[in-house]
Amino acid sequence: MPLPNEPTLALACDLISRASETPEDAGCLDLIQARLAPLGFRFERIDVGGVCNLWARRGEQAPVLCFAGHTDVVPTGPLERWDSPPFEPTIRDGMLYGRGAADMKTSLAAFVTSIEQFIADHPNHSGSIALLLTSDEEGIASHGTVKVVEALAARGERLDYCIVGEPTSVNTLGDTIKNGRRGSLSGTLRVKGQQGHVAYPQLARNPIHMLAPALAELTTIRWDEGNEFFPATTWQVSNIHAGTGANNVIPGECEVMFNFRFASVSTADELKARTHEVLDRHGLEYTIDWHLSGKPFITGRGKLVAALSGAISETLGVETELSTTGGTSDGRFIADVCSEVVEFGPVNATIHKLNECVAVDAIAPLSTVYMRTLRTLLAA
Amino acid sequence: MPLPNEPTLALACDLISRASETPEDAGCLDLIQARLAPLGFRFERIDVGGVCNLWARRGEQAPVLCFAGHTDVVPTGPLERWDSPPFEPTIRDGMLYGRGAADMKTSLAAFVTSIEQFIADHPNHSGSIALLLTSDEEGIASHGTVKVVEALAARGERLDYCIVGEPTSVNTLGDTIKNGRRGSLSGTLRVKGQQGHVAYPQLARNPIHMLAPALAELTTIRWDEGNEFFPATTWQVSNIHAGTGANNVIPGECEVMFNFRFASVSTADELKARTHEVLDRHGLEYTIDWHLSGKPFITGRGKLVAALSGAISETLGVETELSTTGGTSDGRFIADVCSEVVEFGPVNATIHKLNECVAVDAIAPLSTVYMRTLRTLLAA
Ligand SMILES: [Zn+2]
Ligand SMILES: [Zn+2]
Repeated sequence: MPLPNEPTLALACDLISRASETPEDAGCLDLIQARLAPLGFRFERIDVGGVCNLWARRGEQAPVLCFAGHTDVVPTGPLERWDSPPFEPTIRDGMLYGRGAADMKTSLAAFVTSIEQFIADHPNHSGSIALLLTSDEEGIASHGTVKVVEALAARGERLDYCIVGEPTSVNTLGDTIKNGRRGSLSGTLRVKGQQGHVAYPQLARNPIHMLAPALAELTTIRWDEGNEFFPATTWQVSNIHAGTGANNVIPGECEVMFNFRFASVSTADELKARTHEVLDRHGLEYTIDWHLSGKPFITGRGKLVAALSGAISETLGVETELSTTGGTSDGRFIADVCSEVVEFGPVNATIHKLNECVAVDAIAPLSTVYMRTLRTLLAA
Repeated sequence: MPLPNEPTLALACDLISRASETPEDAGCLDLIQARLAPLGFRFERIDVGGVCNLWARRGEQAPVLCFAGHTDVVPTGPLERWDSPPFEPTIRDGMLYGRGAADMKTSLAAFVTSIEQFIADHPNHSGSIALLLTSDEEGIASHGTVKVVEALAARGERLDYCIVGEPTSVNTLGDTIKNGRRGSLSGTLRVKGQQGHVAYPQLARNPIHMLAPALAELTTIRWDEGNEFFPATTWQVSNIHAGTGANNVIPGECEVMFNFRFASVSTADELKARTHEVLDRHGLEYTIDWHLSGKPFITGRGKLVAALSGAISETLGVETELSTTGGTSDGRFIADVCSEVVEFGPVNATIHKLNECVAVDAIAPLSTVYMRTLRTLLAA
């Protein structure tokens, strides 16, 4: 397929044709850097552990509006089950097909073209425009955005606004902005007992029996009430294991893996303390290995949400909703150096699936939304 | 070692020298049968699934006093850790060493010599003397005593008294008779939930969470108060498993293995019904696979206990205690066809261990105890 004329669609196709299966970048960052170079951006490549990361900034002043995203895509799955090859962008029945079409190469293309348009219109804009791009988001995400954020934090460089280009729209472009994500706190609990024979329970201490009332209590706790943006914090056991299969042995230990998805009204330390309080009160002998895989972040109805939802309304005639559902995203890292972080991008119905696609007539408007957000926040 | 002169010790040594690791008999039953044949016993071999069982009876009348036992022994464990070879009976420092010395070849020898002595003294005794011997007690015990009992039950043959020769003495020969055993009822509980992602618990049903309060309740139930012979029934979980290791998945099922050791004041059906009541009341969707591995049996202070404890007192000057502790024994099967079943034999401190042994000077007295019990119950 020859590249189409519409610039965002054309760039999206160019990016999709690069087989950047995570953590590969496959030249996507070079392509974007080449497009931004004539516009006066300074570039910094922060490549860690084989992962390509790009930090780009135009301007020295505050406020800084940053676009953040990833060039990597999830694996294709069985090629024969795609109706067209996943790395050959194909337009069919009004949809652009290809791996990454929705998550998130169309967003990347729209970032670039929105910046090009905005700078053409406002060469002397106020503040700064930045891009934070990585090829390690869909994988373990340990060498991607988090490393760039650490570098920024180390030198005291802060952002004011950040739009992560994740596909947040549900039914139609613009219907949903994610203005936060819940935190994720995991624990592995090991309750110690005393092994023995079921015929002589008085000589043993059954860790399952000792744990049961504490476990029952933990399942009933209302950890918080959530807030206007977050549902109440949830606690779920994912695994419980004790015993070796023999049915005449009282096991010596019981292991429980659990996970909190928590609202920003609770902190990880509070949740840990309350968990320990229950287990201590039940007199258990135990250890917990804690792992905080993502702090919660939340962006209230401030300037960024107002600018973005205004641009959506103006461009698409859609009343946008704020949402904090779903898993974690790179927003959790960026929130460390940025006051207002939101996520906004195309419809996510086909992400990570076969025949991933995005509506062709939503592509140019996405660029316009980003451009109008730039204009509201940075026009001189 | 040449066989000693004392007849019970000599026969015990002969039996120990036969390597009858369960379910092997290694000629023990033939040896015993050869000793009993001149005394007017009728023999019946009930060999099932490679297991040798012997039923022997002298006399046609009631009451029937039966000696029951097993010729098989548990595996030796590492031979190099025995101070003398386990199948070479060895006397050292007043102890007879060898696998089966305590469990239960000395008892078998004492059965035979007590019967020989009794018949010599009372050739026209009242009632009948019987033996029920198997080589499948230490293993899965599915083709041993239970099969002989089934054969007896099928033809309506009942026993009045049975002494199982298990090593019941704790510190000194005669200190303990077992006059019953608790029942053992196992269950495998599977609680059904709905698998899901920990980030979306509202779309899942966590079977661990649903189970927790029911489990907590089950651990606190006082199932009964026991009685003069039995401690209270106990319930213990031996295994609990849910989850595949992933810490972001709510599992779809939780499996729990548990076991009741129950007093004769509760029945297996009552315990099942009460378990179901708790699980049903907690609204669980579940299945339980039940396995009754042993009904409880109890023998009160009747003629057999009186005769045996009198013989112990007369022979050993020991005040015997009744006990129902420990695991299951073949007594659970025999109780189906016998009104009074007890277990009595040598000190059990070394059974199933390296350097299993029995005190040499307790061997002839054990035969005397059995003989005096015969005399009390069957002397004409
Ligand atoms: Zn993505
Ligand atoms: Zn035994």
